[in-house]
Amino acid sequence: MMNKDKKTTAADARVAGRRQFLNTAALVGIGGLAACGDKPASAGAAASASASASAAAHGGAANATHLKPGELDTYYGLWSGGHTGDMRVLGLPSGREIHRIPCFVPDALVGWGITNESKKVMGTKPDGSLKYTVADTHHTHASYTDGNYDGRYAWINDKINARIARIRLDYFICDKITDLPNVQGFHGIFPDKRDPVDEKINHTTRVFCGGEFAIPLPNTGTEDGSKYRALFSCVDAESMEVRWQVLIDGNCDLVATSYDGKLAATNQYNTEMGVHYEDMMSAERDACLFFNVARVEAAVKAGKFKTIGDSKVPVVDGTQAANKDPKTALTAYVSVPKNPHGVNASPDGKYFICSGKLSPTGTVIELSRVLDWFDGKLEKLDSAIVAEVELGLGPLHTAFDDRGNAFTTLFLDSQVVKWNVDAAIKFHKGDKTAKYVIDRLDVQYQPGHLNASHSETKAADGKYLAVGCKFSKDRFLPVGPLHPENEQFIDISGEKMVLLADHPVRGEPHDFIIFKRELVHPKQIYALDDFPLATKDPKDSGVVRNGKKVTVRMTSQAPAFSLREFKLKKGDEVTLILTNLDKVEDLTHGFAIPKYNVNFIVNPQETASVSFIADKPGVFWCYCTHFCHALHLEMRTRMIVEG
Amino acid sequence: MMNKDKKTTAADARVAGRRQFLNTAALVGIGGLAACGDKPASAGAAASASASASAAAHGGAANATHLKPGELDTYYGLWSGGHTGDMRVLGLPSGREIHRIPCFVPDALVGWGITNESKKVMGTKPDGSLKYTVADTHHTHASYTDGNYDGRYAWINDKINARIARIRLDYFICDKITDLPNVQGFHGIFPDKRDPVDEKINHTTRVFCGGEFAIPLPNTGTEDGSKYRALFSCVDAESMEVRWQVLIDGNCDLVATSYDGKLAATNQYNTEMGVHYEDMMSAERDACLFFNVARVEAAVKAGKFKTIGDSKVPVVDGTQAANKDPKTALTAYVSVPKNPHGVNASPDGKYFICSGKLSPTGTVIELSRVLDWFDGKLEKLDSAIVAEVELGLGPLHTAFDDRGNAFTTLFLDSQVVKWNVDAAIKFHKGDKTAKYVIDRLDVQYQPGHLNASHSETKAADGKYLAVGCKFSKDRFLPVGPLHPENEQFIDISGEKMVLLADHPVRGEPHDFIIFKRELVHPKQIYALDDFPLATKDPKDSGVVRNGKKVTVRMTSQAPAFSLREFKLKKGDEVTLILTNLDKVEDLTHGFAIPKYNVNFIVNPQETASVSFIADKPGVFWCYCTHFCHALHLEMRTRMIVEG
Repeated sequence: MMNKDKKTTAADARVAGRRQFLNTAALVGIGGLAACGDKPASAGAAASASASASAAAHGGAANATHLKPGELDTYYGLWSGGHTGDMRVLGLPSGREIHRIPCFVPDALVGWGITNESKKVMGTKPDGSLKYTVADTHHTHASYTDGNYDGRYAWINDKINARIARIRLDYFICDKITDLPNVQGFHGIFPDKRDPVDEKINHTTRVFCGGEFAIPLPNTGTEDGSKYRALFSCVDAESMEVRWQVLIDGNCDLVATSYDGKLAATNQYNTEMGVHYEDMMSAERDACLFFNVARVEAAVKAGKFKTIGDSKVPVVDGTQAANKDPKTALTAYVSVPKNPHGVNASPDGKYFICSGKLSPTGTVIELSRVLDWFDGKLEKLDSAIVAEVELGLGPLHTAFDDRGNAFTTLFLDSQVVKWNVDAAIKFHKGDKTAKYVIDRLDVQYQPGHLNASHSETKAADGKYLAVGCKFSKDRFLPVGPLHPENEQFIDISGEKMVLLADHPVRGEPHDFIIFKRELVHPKQIYALDDFPLATKDPKDSGVVRNGKKVTVRMTSQAPAFSLREFKLKKGDEVTLILTNLDKVEDLTHGFAIPKYNVNFIVNPQETASVSFIADKPGVFWCYCTHFCHALHLEMRTRMIVEG
Repeated sequence: MMNKDKKTTAADARVAGRRQFLNTAALVGIGGLAACGDKPASAGAAASASASASAAAHGGAANATHLKPGELDTYYGLWSGGHTGDMRVLGLPSGREIHRIPCFVPDALVGWGITNESKKVMGTKPDGSLKYTVADTHHTHASYTDGNYDGRYAWINDKINARIARIRLDYFICDKITDLPNVQGFHGIFPDKRDPVDEKINHTTRVFCGGEFAIPLPNTGTEDGSKYRALFSCVDAESMEVRWQVLIDGNCDLVATSYDGKLAATNQYNTEMGVHYEDMMSAERDACLFFNVARVEAAVKAGKFKTIGDSKVPVVDGTQAANKDPKTALTAYVSVPKNPHGVNASPDGKYFICSGKLSPTGTVIELSRVLDWFDGKLEKLDSAIVAEVELGLGPLHTAFDDRGNAFTTLFLDSQVVKWNVDAAIKFHKGDKTAKYVIDRLDVQYQPGHLNASHSETKAADGKYLAVGCKFSKDRFLPVGPLHPENEQFIDISGEKMVLLADHPVRGEPHDFIIFKRELVHPKQIYALDDFPLATKDPKDSGVVRNGKKVTVRMTSQAPAFSLREFKLKKGDEVTLILTNLDKVEDLTHGFAIPKYNVNFIVNPQETASVSFIADKPGVFWCYCTHFCHALHLEMRTRMIVEG
């Protein structure tokens, strides 16, 4: 059906065979998959562009990603780290990973989850141990001003434990983590871009969080799935408190927000409210669920909410049954074909686009019409859909350039399809000559998320596209049963997409954003005064005892710690505070205590502390673990614990 | 003094300024640094080669590291992960990280430290929690057959907690971790290459481990540093039991082994046995300490050992005082200038080379002469030194090509110096016309370890050199106070070294090996029968209760778990066993339980288990965390815990 205008039959056979293989592997067990061709768009239109074989596509632009030693990248990428529970920072176009920001999961390099400061951010049990040590981060998005990234914050989710973390983009550190109450499977996340009421507030003040799994509320443990519901949460961007939640039907996947601040939306699968996967895909259409943010907040203000269990967070009712009257509705459920995956806002501010996943379609929803419906000016909500066109098998996520084109991943076809939004709207209106599909590019293999440089901002620049492929199979040297995933980097500046590079990545990163390096201004040295526990003068170092409670104060200046040795008694409850007085950029020290499970770093002018019980007598050589000086190996202090 | 034949004075000034800056930053506090020129080699010889500025060096070979999408690397690299406590696997020449093998530190991606199987390898406290969650890996080396890597095993150290881990190179997993008794600061590590007695055993059977920090033995906590000693340990390559230990003077840094299996050695700083850094560098010469492996093992067999504390490991006396008679000595302390760093075996099997660190020299020790000394044929042990030549400031580690050349990192000069070993020997013998320095390359910045492809094997091929630079400073986009380190990749196939690429890396990786991809044959699917707990038929899934002890058996086949739901009672002691029955390569599933801090993966045909107390009542959606199928999001099972 596809690839009609390919030149050689050999290539035809190869591509067809590849697709056959991919579909066989990936479709096992999908009884309810919508067949190609039963949707408004004709197969002919979708097939008008040729599939470009990746080997051929890699042409003169190949070296665009290779920087000479010392050359700097021009873009940053913020990447969700997947199950490593952190945020990855990439330099692009090289694709080099230049940092990992620990968030939800301990990080033995920096001592995240070891120091008292990081444990406070992560959250502890009553016994002082960490509440959680696993996470599943999916989506990351950054704060906006005037429709573009402003370099203040980024946020990232933990799906397993329903937590949201905030990243400060001055120091590239996580400073807050919030638990979403009564939520299981927190999935999509998106900051707002403008205040829905006060137009003057033209920057991010809220972050929206989609709850995926429906559960009993409160979680009584009932088996009756029809009583389960999910919650959509709004978190304050500054305080990181949960402002409000909305009770909803269906399971949230991704989240998008409008540039005018008035609408947030989440695409939903399992509006059937099934508890087994075949039930979850029984309906032909699911939903893109819109929230009228101003009305939700007015309802909260008016006291029209309940609370659930121990949580004090106001919860308003956003179920379909409670929101039938457009004039008072808090929510609007626009229908979208079968288990949609992904909702993305076009950079012109006009549309949200949902992908069909189990339907081969992309659905374009015009935001002004959704607002019209809320205003009682549009009779049928679904007439907000201005296009629903066939894109290929397994459409998931969509990115944009600055020339009206969209790029959608096709999981089953293992392709990225480039299509023109205006042409799709024309085609949907009835102009069957409108060729909306512009190009197709095979990717390796089975793409999930993709994103383009500044795609989700008004400053979309149509330069680079990154695609997270879920399987790498044969693309890298074999390393045992666990394969890396394959993030591919694509030049989208021309008519045809050009595959530039394959980058292996540990599972399971998902979403990411790409922006120009000028937008952030990182600080490379901390301010001593920002740390209340700082020891500013090495002379103030020493051991202070208060019964069994002992405080050890120390400073580091290459190649020595201010204390040559310090003495404790067995059973002491020790808090050790280390201040790095070195001021040279990049001059980080580490501090490890053998057998005491302590290792952490102090960056220039940083102070960090650890607490432990001195339960093992003996001599323990605490040493600097972060190379700092020619005498780094000799940089030690003796902890002597008297038995 | 250096750079005499550089063409432009502008370049001269720039390089001089750069060196001035580097030295000022890195030398602060080194009172005892040996000045350039007070060693046997003259400054003139060292200055005979020009410093090649990195920008100029990056010429036509620049794209050698850029692979087209889908092209495979030709070399593997095994890299110590530093404080992330794992082993990194790189593909080279691209420098892409294709895997991380969890060892000493929990890994939330694979569930290392979460599953019962991984906890057994890592070691737990009596309460079942992990003994350690931090580590400091430095050195990694692989098993040998006939003087070259054989693709069976690699080993890696944890300096903080004195642990050694073994990696299986068929599945790229860690299968054993051993605690070294009575050791603090386990640093260098090297497998033997041949049996010292039975010549027919021409492969690795032992791994040698250098103990760095001297402590009271047993660790009484005495303050008197003169009573502290370190231990050098031998671990059995197969059983991973500690075979024996040697009590020694000084602090071990790196370890090297001879191709004939007869000698192991460690370079030593602080033979002064100081406890403060200025004492540690007071002596003008320290040592390269050789072990006569056969004699040590004969002494153990003869019962000439003691044990320390609770440990049953035999400890023989290798101190200088106890080993003055060459004919019976177990050890030989060859003198090496001031706090040497690094000892490396030349691929021709003839020499060990130590670097001076605080002395600008490289010391070449001829192994046949050390054996002569043990045989009573060499009067003065130090006449085993056949060269001691000036290389530059802060020499640390040495790698080799297949043409008789050595490459040594100069930490303070921030260079790699290429020098010819035979020419150095000639120069040392008195031929002052012998120009042993062939080339110098500035690196960015302050290099520690370096290694070349197959450098530490008989198959050294002189193709690629990687250098771990401890500071990246301005080489990558800024990411806050914690900079990545900079691993640089260099072409050494020609006369001049050519810098190919900068690769950022999380601190603090150290040592690594590079070898041809043909040498390993990874398996990509597990064998079901290798897991005693495997559930081979989905029909055998279910919940088996024995009082409060509950076993849950489950299988995974995309897109479903064999149990749709399973019921527990609050307080149950649960062991959940999951077998992945999918056989397709790369088809890994994950299993997360919200709020229960459980997430782990099962690769194709793998079985893993977790144990937990069902202490929270309610409905918990356990879900597949590793993308597997178009219906991945729908792949869930309900854990219902009755209150």
